[in-house]
Amino acid sequence: MPSSEQLRDLSAFLSIPSVSRDGRHMAEAAAWVAERLAFAGGRVVESDGHPVVLGGLPGPPDAPPILVYGHYDVQPPGGAGEGATPAVAPALRDGRVYARGASDDKGPVFIALETARAFHEAGGAPLTVRFLIEGEEEIGSPSLAAFLAAHADELAADLVVSADGAMWRASEPSVPVAAKGLLALDVEGTGPAARLHSGRHGGAVPNPNHALSRLLASLHDDGGRVAVPGFYDGVRDVPLGPVPFDEDAYQAEVGVPALHGEPGYSTLARLWTRPTLEVNGIEGGGWFTVIPRRAAAHITCRLVPGQDPDAVFAAIERHLRPPPGVEVSVRREPGAVPAYGIATDHPAVHAAVAALEHTYPGSRPLLVRIGGAPPAPGGFGRALGLKTLLFSVSIAGEEPPPPDQVLPA
Amino acid sequence: MPSSEQLRDLSAFLSIPSVSRDGRHMAEAAAWVAERLAFAGGRVVESDGHPVVLGGLPGPPDAPPILVYGHYDVQPPGGAGEGATPAVAPALRDGRVYARGASDDKGPVFIALETARAFHEAGGAPLTVRFLIEGEEEIGSPSLAAFLAAHADELAADLVVSADGAMWRASEPSVPVAAKGLLALDVEGTGPAARLHSGRHGGAVPNPNHALSRLLASLHDDGGRVAVPGFYDGVRDVPLGPVPFDEDAYQAEVGVPALHGEPGYSTLARLWTRPTLEVNGIEGGGWFTVIPRRAAAHITCRLVPGQDPDAVFAAIERHLRPPPGVEVSVRREPGAVPAYGIATDHPAVHAAVAALEHTYPGSRPLLVRIGGAPPAPGGFGRALGLKTLLFSVSIAGEEPPPPDQVLPA
Repeated sequence: MPSSEQLRDLSAFLSIPSVSRDGRHMAEAAAWVAERLAFAGGRVVESDGHPVVLGGLPGPPDAPPILVYGHYDVQPPGGAGEGATPAVAPALRDGRVYARGASDDKGPVFIALETARAFHEAGGAPLTVRFLIEGEEEIGSPSLAAFLAAHADELAADLVVSADGAMWRASEPSVPVAAKGLLALDVEGTGPAARLHSGRHGGAVPNPNHALSRLLASLHDDGGRVAVPGFYDGVRDVPLGPVPFDEDAYQAEVGVPALHGEPGYSTLARLWTRPTLEVNGIEGGGWFTVIPRRAAAHITCRLVPGQDPDAVFAAIERHLRPPPGVEVSVRREPGAVPAYGIATDHPAVHAAVAALEHTYPGSRPLLVRIGGAPPAPGGFGRALGLKTLLFSVSIAGEEPPPPDQVLPA
Repeated sequence: MPSSEQLRDLSAFLSIPSVSRDGRHMAEAAAWVAERLAFAGGRVVESDGHPVVLGGLPGPPDAPPILVYGHYDVQPPGGAGEGATPAVAPALRDGRVYARGASDDKGPVFIALETARAFHEAGGAPLTVRFLIEGEEEIGSPSLAAFLAAHADELAADLVVSADGAMWRASEPSVPVAAKGLLALDVEGTGPAARLHSGRHGGAVPNPNHALSRLLASLHDDGGRVAVPGFYDGVRDVPLGPVPFDEDAYQAEVGVPALHGEPGYSTLARLWTRPTLEVNGIEGGGWFTVIPRRAAAHITCRLVPGQDPDAVFAAIERHLRPPPGVEVSVRREPGAVPAYGIATDHPAVHAAVAALEHTYPGSRPLLVRIGGAPPAPGGFGRALGLKTLLFSVSIAGEEPPPPDQVLPA
């Protein structure tokens, strides 16, 4: 259990609105991390983007060095109209901390730092531990590759241990061995030069809302399979083995009248092994009698091993042919990430399983696959030739409840 | 040409943000109209909704009484993201006044009042003229019927002359003989109990954005015809006769790459005689990696004679069957209006044509059909048994340009 002093300090960290998409408060959050890491030489280092915090604790001469990774940036607050809008102000409820970034990734970063500090104060770390806490994960870590290349010597290690990711369930210790990749794109349809009165012009001019709806509807077939030719190219079926999964409990957890997805696969297979295409946002016109000038959608695809983000984008772009009278642009967002995986018999996976068995006596940690697409593991692989062990201790899928108890300030 | 004093006064009227949907500034706008109508006993009268302005000018004993109708309320400013957002602050550009409500309907109301005043100051009106200027037209005139019933004696007339509507073109004097009806509805699809991370849950739970897109796409067939069974029930083909209409000029005016609409009809027939279904607004989720909890659309149908708003709504509701895992609600907005028409050989139409021929010497005024759906004519017919002559002098389809010259304050 954290001490009240630790809760207070975590609350201060969570209260910094370090939204990397906005770019404000980044130096403040980085300085906070560096100060917290002072026992291990923590310092803020400039990058091409938001600053990075580095640090290190020496271990015994023969012990292998590891690089602990995390990020101090967070996603922006949710859009208007969504029920539960994440708040920055931390709240404590039923013994859990709720705040933007509490689980992704400030909480896990805080735990990694506190763990290292405990080793340090108890006489030293059993390994040489280096730290790299960045501020651009939520925008795809665009500066990370150049930063790693520029600091390769200082960051030399045998393995990256990432404090980013998520436990499969609070009740079941788990080690992720695969993470889906990510491709994000925006679709915009434009029609009239300005919005028009729908009474005066309706039925005679193309309506971008209609065009966008048709385009988006064409992305899946009636059954729920992605209908973009070439989307599944390179995808292999992955046997899951026996993993306990209660579909009814999952349905109740997400609160849907029925589960729905690609025919021929179990819900767990859909979640863990199948690529997806989700329309995250749609927007066009308003609650007035207009034909809008434009309508737009934001789409993200979650990719699996064998899929090339470039090829998937090209396939979608090819598929989205403009209907009559509407111009359609498909814009790819920067920061696509291919899927990531680590061999299930990698020594780091064995070590992680052993650590969890030690921490949760009597448990049999699961090897799991996650849907989130951390950009860092691919970057570490390409820049430093390192595998990454995803070893977070947050739980996936939290939504903040209404504030109950405010954390100590 | 208006005097600079008239322009200054019109500017003051336009500057009152009397948006009936918000309900603020309504008493202020009504008081302004009553004061302007002081020469004809103008006064503010309470209704079940926003106040109504009444007034009257006596004519010669044998002259038929007419009731001049208009409205002082306006539409709200446009939604964010739309290029040309209408402003309340009036601007003068190339000799025209641009402001929210300048053409719908404060400008035409102002002209009607000024015309009556000129007759009054020149020795009296040739007709008995009564005035009714309401404040709920843009929300479907929900209180008008009860108001008319309560004030039937005072409003007794042979004809309603409406200052609401629009000229077909500035260059071609015209008299509307038909106005489409209106049916507005909202469609909402709800899926998960709260929004979900699209990486963690994508592909396994129904996405309301997908469901809404499929529903909206199903409303028209590939060619552009409304695909809702029963939508066209009762619709008759209306011969238009020879009306000059330049499709290329129209396409350039609205600024679309191509015109598009129901196959088998000319653009003018689509605009004037065919019912339409337009999706005015779509909204769901956001530009984040979420599966939203809900997605919604606003739809308006423009109806023609023979269509019953109740039956059309029922047909659409029947057609919008929820996809798996998504709950769909279809909510009808209050204030549906059936189509309106006046016989082309009605004496009021003859009088209007004669007045226009007098005002525009050498012209041959067109009999036209308009897409806007004024709720008042049906109300006058049901409550008072009166036909309404639509006789506005604004031009359809203005969008305000960037401010150029500010009107005298």
